[in-house]
Amino acid sequence: MASFSSYIFLIILFIISVGASKIKSIYLPGTYQSSLLVKKHDEKIKIPFKTHYFPQILDHFTFLPKSSKVFYQKYLINDQYWHKEGGGPIFVYTGNEGNIDWFAVNTGFMIDIAPKFNALLVFIEHRFYGDSMPFGNNSYKSAKTLGYLNSQQALADYAVLIRSLKQNLSSDSSPVVVFGGSYGGMLAAWFRLKYPHIAIGAVASSAPILQFDKITPWSSFYDAVSQDFKDASLNCYKVIKGSWAELDALSTHDDGLIEVSKLFRTCKALHSGYSARDWLWEAFVYTAMVNYPTEANFMMPLPAYPVEEMCKIIDGLPKGASKLSKAFAAASLYYNYTQTEKCFNLEGGTDSHGLHGWDWQACTEMVMPMTCSNESMFPPFSFSYEEFTQDCKKQFGVKPRPHWITTEFGGNRIEQVLKRFGSNMIFSNGMQDPWSRGGVLKNISSSIVALITHKGAHHVDFRSETKNDPDWLIMQRKQEVAIIEKWLEEYYKDLKQD
Amino acid sequence: MASFSSYIFLIILFIISVGASKIKSIYLPGTYQSSLLVKKHDEKIKIPFKTHYFPQILDHFTFLPKSSKVFYQKYLINDQYWHKEGGGPIFVYTGNEGNIDWFAVNTGFMIDIAPKFNALLVFIEHRFYGDSMPFGNNSYKSAKTLGYLNSQQALADYAVLIRSLKQNLSSDSSPVVVFGGSYGGMLAAWFRLKYPHIAIGAVASSAPILQFDKITPWSSFYDAVSQDFKDASLNCYKVIKGSWAELDALSTHDDGLIEVSKLFRTCKALHSGYSARDWLWEAFVYTAMVNYPTEANFMMPLPAYPVEEMCKIIDGLPKGASKLSKAFAAASLYYNYTQTEKCFNLEGGTDSHGLHGWDWQACTEMVMPMTCSNESMFPPFSFSYEEFTQDCKKQFGVKPRPHWITTEFGGNRIEQVLKRFGSNMIFSNGMQDPWSRGGVLKNISSSIVALITHKGAHHVDFRSETKNDPDWLIMQRKQEVAIIEKWLEEYYKDLKQD
Repeated sequence: MASFSSYIFLIILFIISVGASKIKSIYLPGTYQSSLLVKKHDEKIKIPFKTHYFPQILDHFTFLPKSSKVFYQKYLINDQYWHKEGGGPIFVYTGNEGNIDWFAVNTGFMIDIAPKFNALLVFIEHRFYGDSMPFGNNSYKSAKTLGYLNSQQALADYAVLIRSLKQNLSSDSSPVVVFGGSYGGMLAAWFRLKYPHIAIGAVASSAPILQFDKITPWSSFYDAVSQDFKDASLNCYKVIKGSWAELDALSTHDDGLIEVSKLFRTCKALHSGYSARDWLWEAFVYTAMVNYPTEANFMMPLPAYPVEEMCKIIDGLPKGASKLSKAFAAASLYYNYTQTEKCFNLEGGTDSHGLHGWDWQACTEMVMPMTCSNESMFPPFSFSYEEFTQDCKKQFGVKPRPHWITTEFGGNRIEQVLKRFGSNMIFSNGMQDPWSRGGVLKNISSSIVALITHKGAHHVDFRSETKNDPDWLIMQRKQEVAIIEKWLEEYYKDLKQD
Repeated sequence: MASFSSYIFLIILFIISVGASKIKSIYLPGTYQSSLLVKKHDEKIKIPFKTHYFPQILDHFTFLPKSSKVFYQKYLINDQYWHKEGGGPIFVYTGNEGNIDWFAVNTGFMIDIAPKFNALLVFIEHRFYGDSMPFGNNSYKSAKTLGYLNSQQALADYAVLIRSLKQNLSSDSSPVVVFGGSYGGMLAAWFRLKYPHIAIGAVASSAPILQFDKITPWSSFYDAVSQDFKDASLNCYKVIKGSWAELDALSTHDDGLIEVSKLFRTCKALHSGYSARDWLWEAFVYTAMVNYPTEANFMMPLPAYPVEEMCKIIDGLPKGASKLSKAFAAASLYYNYTQTEKCFNLEGGTDSHGLHGWDWQACTEMVMPMTCSNESMFPPFSFSYEEFTQDCKKQFGVKPRPHWITTEFGGNRIEQVLKRFGSNMIFSNGMQDPWSRGGVLKNISSSIVALITHKGAHHVDFRSETKNDPDWLIMQRKQEVAIIEKWLEEYYKDLKQD
């Protein structure tokens, strides 16, 4: 059970981290960063940012002699649309667990709307990701260095950097709006809550701020993945649900791993059946997350509505074929939509910093318990704080603080709390995205609103607009723009009365 | 100038810390604590609290191996009025820079109103004060231990403790209201801003949350002290204003210190004229702060409206007497109202932990620049961040972060920020109190309100009611009670709709 919970632990990582590990060939810190940009540039996605580095303080919340150590935090600036003199707004992306360039590439929404708002665009990298390494190559060495990686320090970084930036740009009167998707969305929402004097509003896309403690049912994430597949095709759901037992039976069979390796077209013979399970599992989970209405390449290149496409593959195969072979065929869409892979590497992927960093965060503060119910299409499993704690202690030498996030940021009874406190927040969610279940799905007040789309997926609203965008997506973005406009109008009105 | 700025630095400490050093004969940590209580008990002030200790985490904002070290944080509980079953509220005092018993003694208001509200009373001691020493006797040893002493860690302590307490008492539905005076009031206000999910409202009395950066004019504190004396008597103000030059002239004179020692009736011959200046200065500043409408013993036993009494002494002395002798006579009221002192100890007082602790906080985060204008009754002086930084580096080996408090908690344009964000805060101030100038003095919104009294002094509203309380004080407290009632009504109404 312990090894299984470790496995589960890996699977619940955010898309970004796993995405980072999956696309590690182009997503490595250092020299390879530019190749990502070049690649995207080739695809005619423009990300015209200048890179800067801010001397950031190591520890905002103690005054120990070493707290004031400085590291260089990366941030990107685009000022081509900014009307500084008119007090044009500053749109800040609160970076999440990865290289900030990648978020800039995948948050075209901000670039799309910048001209309309005459906005300055700033993307700030999260400490301990990308280039923003407080201890250089030693940053991930142990808990003695990693101990400074957490959300509160990241928020304080953003506060200090934004304040300094505004001062240096002599743009005190420019209002700041923060944007973020996924964990970055959680940071954006929390930033508005903790630093309302710095940001006048927050747009938090696909931010599962309620995925802690017992606020959201622990089984909801995998139930939501399962629902996506069930909605596409009941047969598809049943095939996948039945495939795990077939895999188990085959794996434990004499020479079973050889058969599994053959079936999964692995480049090298598998050492464990778990590798095949992980591989399938990840494909289904991440495809549900990025079940976008248009062809996209966030995690992997995928067609429009890839869950439906996967189910079409399953439903199209002969009745006699095994469930496992059907599941493999479906998962292949995720790993090989471009048809360029001749074989698959299911084992031996090294962790990128991004993955390792989130691993640390999940083992300390970001404790999001998850289980699989009997109704899900995955094998049922439970969650135990005790086992989780033991695993984390073993891995990092520190104990998780599983109730700290809700102590620090709240979450319980959020509607009652925030309807009496706070303002100017957008929580956008697409219900295809399993993370949506841990998000804010109802309007809380007139200015803390939930924008929900039934067919949307993981922060789809933050992606660049395309010619094929469906009406509901166009509408969602329009609503976001209108709300931000209202915040700004109010702000400028207040400013005049100063 | 450097030595003068160090001096100024001492003078701007909050009343509590200096109070602690002044009353050190009964205010020492450890064995002497109970004598304070006994003394007060003799005076028929009831403080029926039970003492508890909470295993608190050393560092909430990092996950270093040593962050999870536990120390024992003291807190006091009174449950005699609590209607737990009816979801009676929990009134929490967010302890400031001193022994929590002392705040319990001097916050009779909470005890007075507890029966009306059926409230549980909790007084939580601030880390690094009183008994709540994270490193025992070594807590003040150096920046390596003191580094964990700051307001954000203190607020997180309160959040963790309150959450745990409610869980242990099975009182999840009981709303929490936080109270605090002076620095404790700043903490109460900030707690509501940062932890609205834990406290439904905050009563912040005499909380100078705007005494940072350039939000409040740097000269306002000493101008306010001077105004108090000018309002009592213009002659009095002029005499004090003129006394400093006389002291300087006398001190630098041959055998001048002997004359000063004689004039000031010191127990031992003075080593420096600065001691006499400090002694006078403190008397005037703290008497202005505690210019209460009734006889009281917060810092020192004093008559009602002690500033007026001081000025009566000055104005009553013969015209021919020196200004310095008049200033001494006035200051003697502060140090010897009970007429029990035969001589005065102006030098050689050892710092209590309380003083030292605030000294550290003032040298790191609580940087409140202050100057004396030409219009004040004190000798003019300026403030320099550079000198301040040098002094602090010399004293503690760490550099102040003078703009951190406003980055973390805001303050600039507070009316515009909080009229659009936040709710349920009372900022009460008495305009006799020089700290009032750094407080919130205007209503910000319908539920973030300023309660101002012209004749009030440093958190006078938090003192126990007395028979001699003037109408304006009775009225101020009634307003506070009515507002708290409204918060609670709203909360219980929301709770029913859950």
